Amino acid sequence: MTTQQLIEQINLKKSFLCVGLDVDLNKIPQRFLALEDPIFEFNKAIIDATHDLAVAYKPNIAFFEAYGIKGWLSLKKTIDYINENYPEVFTIADAKRGDIGNTSSMYAKAFFEDLNFNSITVAPYMGKDSVEPFLAFEDKHTIMLALTSNEGAFDFQTLNVDGEELYKRVLETSKSWKNSKNLMYVVGATKAEYFTEIRKIVPDSFLLVPGVGAQGGSLSEVCKYGMNANVGLLINSSRGIIYASKEDDFAEKARAEALKIQQEMAAIMQSGN
Amino acid sequence: MTTQQLIEQINLKKSFLCVGLDVDLNKIPQRFLALEDPIFEFNKAIIDATHDLAVAYKPNIAFFEAYGIKGWLSLKKTIDYINENYPEVFTIADAKRGDIGNTSSMYAKAFFEDLNFNSITVAPYMGKDSVEPFLAFEDKHTIMLALTSNEGAFDFQTLNVDGEELYKRVLETSKSWKNSKNLMYVVGATKAEYFTEIRKIVPDSFLLVPGVGAQGGSLSEVCKYGMNANVGLLINSSRGIIYASKEDDFAEKARAEALKIQQEMAAIMQSGN
Repeated sequence: MTTQQLIEQINLKKSFLCVGLDVDLNKIPQRFLALEDPIFEFNKAIIDATHDLAVAYKPNIAFFEAYGIKGWLSLKKTIDYINENYPEVFTIADAKRGDIGNTSSMYAKAFFEDLNFNSITVAPYMGKDSVEPFLAFEDKHTIMLALTSNEGAFDFQTLNVDGEELYKRVLETSKSWKNSKNLMYVVGATKAEYFTEIRKIVPDSFLLVPGVGAQGGSLSEVCKYGMNANVGLLINSSRGIIYASKEDDFAEKARAEALKIQQEMAAIMQSGN
Repeated sequence: MTTQQLIEQINLKKSFLCVGLDVDLNKIPQRFLALEDPIFEFNKAIIDATHDLAVAYKPNIAFFEAYGIKGWLSLKKTIDYINENYPEVFTIADAKRGDIGNTSSMYAKAFFEDLNFNSITVAPYMGKDSVEPFLAFEDKHTIMLALTSNEGAFDFQTLNVDGEELYKRVLETSKSWKNSKNLMYVVGATKAEYFTEIRKIVPDSFLLVPGVGAQGGSLSEVCKYGMNANVGLLINSSRGIIYASKEDDFAEKARAEALKIQQEMAAIMQSGN
């Protein structure tokens, strides 16, 4: 999927919502546990209930890997289900990968070819040759960690590097990498005041924004400082949507939560903020 | 496996060699491709041929993930084979994981519980709460990236942070984390001169050292500057051993390469350097 196609979907749905699929078997309705593939069936129900309100789904790979081969099968079924039924939706493998060149190439093969995701999240610590193998894929997107939403973000990401914070250096440096047009960045919503600075460095890039809702970030604040002419944001909500209810009405409640966010987004888009 | 047990194995085998299992189907003898699980069968042959010369095996997770569910099955069979037949060997999931707390917990569950590895490699960019969930496991080890062996290491890891290089700050900060005794660090062999500085910060920690051989690092140089009283090093070789031959003698040739390194290590240990 090209960036232009993603922008078209955002305008069509009046939404820039990404639904995070972080399925914990302890948090889903207990009746699913009797099914052969509880994780896939739960995801399917969530996706069917929200696909017209969201422009992206973000399976959190750890939550599949934790169940071993069964989990990997659930992941494959989930991404195949989205690609077959809702090919207009942008898919993000939230995997935070990154390694030396030939190893990153193998990760890229895993997520872009074998699983056919549109994008993957990667970590920047190992630098250029750990990220470029992902960027080499045409019409795929590499979403690099810049400033994350967790407390540990302040351990290293905001350290002072020759007068500027490390995450800014990460953003700047990455712009010189081959095919950097395929880059997006992770920027946590819990730090809305940082978006102004970030937009000075990457005015046109899409930013994947976790931390709205459960982690305390404000949608309107993020939009105020982070939006660009093409919206340029994908706002993720995981727990707030998929665990809106633990009862049999979980899919309805998930839709209601997604609708609330989508309506807020539509209003923001209309006001041109 | 405890650190003490690892040290005992090093002394018993007079070896601190780690064999990296980065199996690329294009590089193994073609007869394997006719088997049901070529990756596992190749790994098994390498392990059987080298287990008395190596103290650790390091499957590179990307090389399994690239083959999807089949790859994950090969990984499971490989780690199970080591644990059942050579439980004295230290196992490293080379996965470079790291995410917010509850996600890192799921990765820890995947590699420490489901797959039963002794250790995993992790990336530091997201800070304390992204690494501590791994450290919470007793008798498991978390091997954090400090200074890697690739060119991109110089993009961020050696940046000047308030007068010292970022990787040094990463090492120092990590010492204050909960259960930091379970930490080891990745330090590339291609930068042997850095080991003196690193040993000032983490004198007692084990260092996992890639980059000897194919990537150009020197074993004797690394030992000269990086060894401590318990050896404190795990020297990885992947391609130099597993692809020593592409013919039917690949296992013999792998053993011969491993033996050459082990003998060099025994000599270094004896000379107390």
